[in-house]
Amino acid sequence: MPREVGIVGVGHPRFGKSGVSFTEMCCYAAMEALDDAGIKTGPGHGVDQVFLATMGAQMLNHQSGIASGIVDTLNLRPAMAETIENGPAGGASAVKLGYMAIASGMCDVVLVIGGEMMRVVSGWEGTDMVATMLHPEAEYPYGLTLPSFAGMFTRLIMEKYGVEENDLARVAVKNHENAMHNPSAHIRLVPKYEVITDPEDQPSVNPYVAEPLRLYDVCPVSDGAAAVVLCAMDVADRFPKKPIKIAGIGQATDTHAVAEREVPTDLLAVRLAAQKAYKMAGLGPEDMDVAELHDAFQILEIVESEEVGFFPRGEGHLAVRRGDTKIGGKIPINTSGGLKAKGHPLGATGVSQIIEIVRQLRGEAEGRQVQGAKAGLAVNFGGFGNNVVATILTKEGE
Amino acid sequence: MPREVGIVGVGHPRFGKSGVSFTEMCCYAAMEALDDAGIKTGPGHGVDQVFLATMGAQMLNHQSGIASGIVDTLNLRPAMAETIENGPAGGASAVKLGYMAIASGMCDVVLVIGGEMMRVVSGWEGTDMVATMLHPEAEYPYGLTLPSFAGMFTRLIMEKYGVEENDLARVAVKNHENAMHNPSAHIRLVPKYEVITDPEDQPSVNPYVAEPLRLYDVCPVSDGAAAVVLCAMDVADRFPKKPIKIAGIGQATDTHAVAEREVPTDLLAVRLAAQKAYKMAGLGPEDMDVAELHDAFQILEIVESEEVGFFPRGEGHLAVRRGDTKIGGKIPINTSGGLKAKGHPLGATGVSQIIEIVRQLRGEAEGRQVQGAKAGLAVNFGGFGNNVVATILTKEGE
Repeated sequence: MPREVGIVGVGHPRFGKSGVSFTEMCCYAAMEALDDAGIKTGPGHGVDQVFLATMGAQMLNHQSGIASGIVDTLNLRPAMAETIENGPAGGASAVKLGYMAIASGMCDVVLVIGGEMMRVVSGWEGTDMVATMLHPEAEYPYGLTLPSFAGMFTRLIMEKYGVEENDLARVAVKNHENAMHNPSAHIRLVPKYEVITDPEDQPSVNPYVAEPLRLYDVCPVSDGAAAVVLCAMDVADRFPKKPIKIAGIGQATDTHAVAEREVPTDLLAVRLAAQKAYKMAGLGPEDMDVAELHDAFQILEIVESEEVGFFPRGEGHLAVRRGDTKIGGKIPINTSGGLKAKGHPLGATGVSQIIEIVRQLRGEAEGRQVQGAKAGLAVNFGGFGNNVVATILTKEGE
Repeated sequence: MPREVGIVGVGHPRFGKSGVSFTEMCCYAAMEALDDAGIKTGPGHGVDQVFLATMGAQMLNHQSGIASGIVDTLNLRPAMAETIENGPAGGASAVKLGYMAIASGMCDVVLVIGGEMMRVVSGWEGTDMVATMLHPEAEYPYGLTLPSFAGMFTRLIMEKYGVEENDLARVAVKNHENAMHNPSAHIRLVPKYEVITDPEDQPSVNPYVAEPLRLYDVCPVSDGAAAVVLCAMDVADRFPKKPIKIAGIGQATDTHAVAEREVPTDLLAVRLAAQKAYKMAGLGPEDMDVAELHDAFQILEIVESEEVGFFPRGEGHLAVRRGDTKIGGKIPINTSGGLKAKGHPLGATGVSQIIEIVRQLRGEAEGRQVQGAKAGLAVNFGGFGNNVVATILTKEGE
């Protein structure tokens, strides 16, 4: 029976445009998480390991070995340190590695940070960096980008299941409304559904980015960092807050080239990752009270909500129309504002999703609290779905 | 009591100049390791997790998400996958994470690959990429590089302990001699000690790179990949070869800026990492039969041999003069040829060092075999010593 692992500290400065260095940005998030866990840095700090998730620090910020530098800046020497890259799913991967580090008995306390500083380069350079995770022979050289993939995927889903452009706008408006109550969110403005879906207004306020995806169907480009402190449940009484348990972790890879998938409208890795996480937790989709799904593009929230078992295949958009995914609905999704409104600093996103679940289970999600939430799911999506990590958290002892 | 972990497969194509893509280079190493472990890819392969260590794939090869792509190329879907970066110590870090993945109970079998493709860019671009792991405010902007640090460090050591330039040449010749028997080594030529140390010949055959470091005191720039298959000892009977046990892992960080260290001639992180590894293994330096030390610069082999406890401080060069570190000596060091002659493809190096120890403990190190070797130490060095991983392997059941 491996050791159980919980989260005892979270740190999440507001996403947006950072004015400090990459290391400093990460350290601010980390200090908030350490403070939340009651950990003082310096001699006797007790932190055994630091994992930093970042996707593009080399290409965008011309830096490497950052995890080691963060340990020093935070005065956590001689803690072990590694940097983790798994595209935009690196944050959840780093939390998974924190889980493994503790469950293995090698560590008692692990600090996991996710960070990305994207707004130091042009939009084109950022889009290109993200596209470097596509297949290096079958996709990238042909000019494919993540938005172009998402556009094609959306078109297929629309034709197959009757999803309409306005369903994407519904998801966007919901997530922007949620973000109004999240002080960590990048964009805290709510677009009016009537305006962004009005055929006359659309060309100016909500133009196509990659048809049929419009501006409000796509996440913004954000800087940001988020951090969590993990500990073995058997040492959790060292820390002031009750631990939120990491009850399940599932991860799955799919074909690198999207064109090689048997059913191009399926997100097989999402399904397999969620199934594994449910199995490890001994829970099912019906037990989840809240979920953060990876809505880099609004279509993904809809399809993921089906793949993780919340709604039957092809009916996720009907659930959106019914309001099932709003706070107060059957299964509130992206109460944080999601990638759409909270922002999507790649390496930080998976950590940020997990923090939102922690806040919900702690009852600290002021203004957007899901009442009585006891279990939550986060899905972090890498590549165009070729590496997905699902994490289930539970509130213990009640 | 966590699960014990062993190595049941190794793959190490020759380092040098790769003619294939980054993914293919890694897959060749992986296929060799899988084959050594008797694993057939495709359905039922049993590999739960793949870790890829690489330092510069983003800057040098403009690629990310490579670990996920490798899983697909190798037909190991839906195995989990992450890419690990810890400067030139990423290889040993990835093996450590493989250990954690198995000891945690999350995985039974893990494939760890290290790879770097450096010779697609100019020497200057490669040197710059490596330097991005130096302190981003206190070191990198002032033009410091790894060779310049190593030069200054060597000068200090020479003044403090009486090490001479010719001692570095002795280390180099030893390692080149060892590499003559290692089919995986990049450079299989032995420089004549009399020629590279002759004051008349030196300016042409062995010029200064970063005074007092000469050409033969510095490792070459190599492409290369290496891979190992790890498994839980409780499932080791699935595989044809007897497992070599990962008995100890230690890791430590030091100040990011070298100038902030109390004693600039100490490699504190090497000492702490080795001490932790010895403690975990229940062994000491006197129990080691063979060692791979991170000789990116020849001075490092000398100082590391002291920090890990093989020789008293300041006497490592005397041990070299006595021949203690040659095969047949007190403690043979870098029987593989070391980074000096085997090559130093950054992310691959830590995995390669561990493979050499496996080969020695298996008795497969033809021509360079340390007779009766039962325990070995590998030290993988990141930054200028700000993140070091030490790994101890043992031969079990004899």
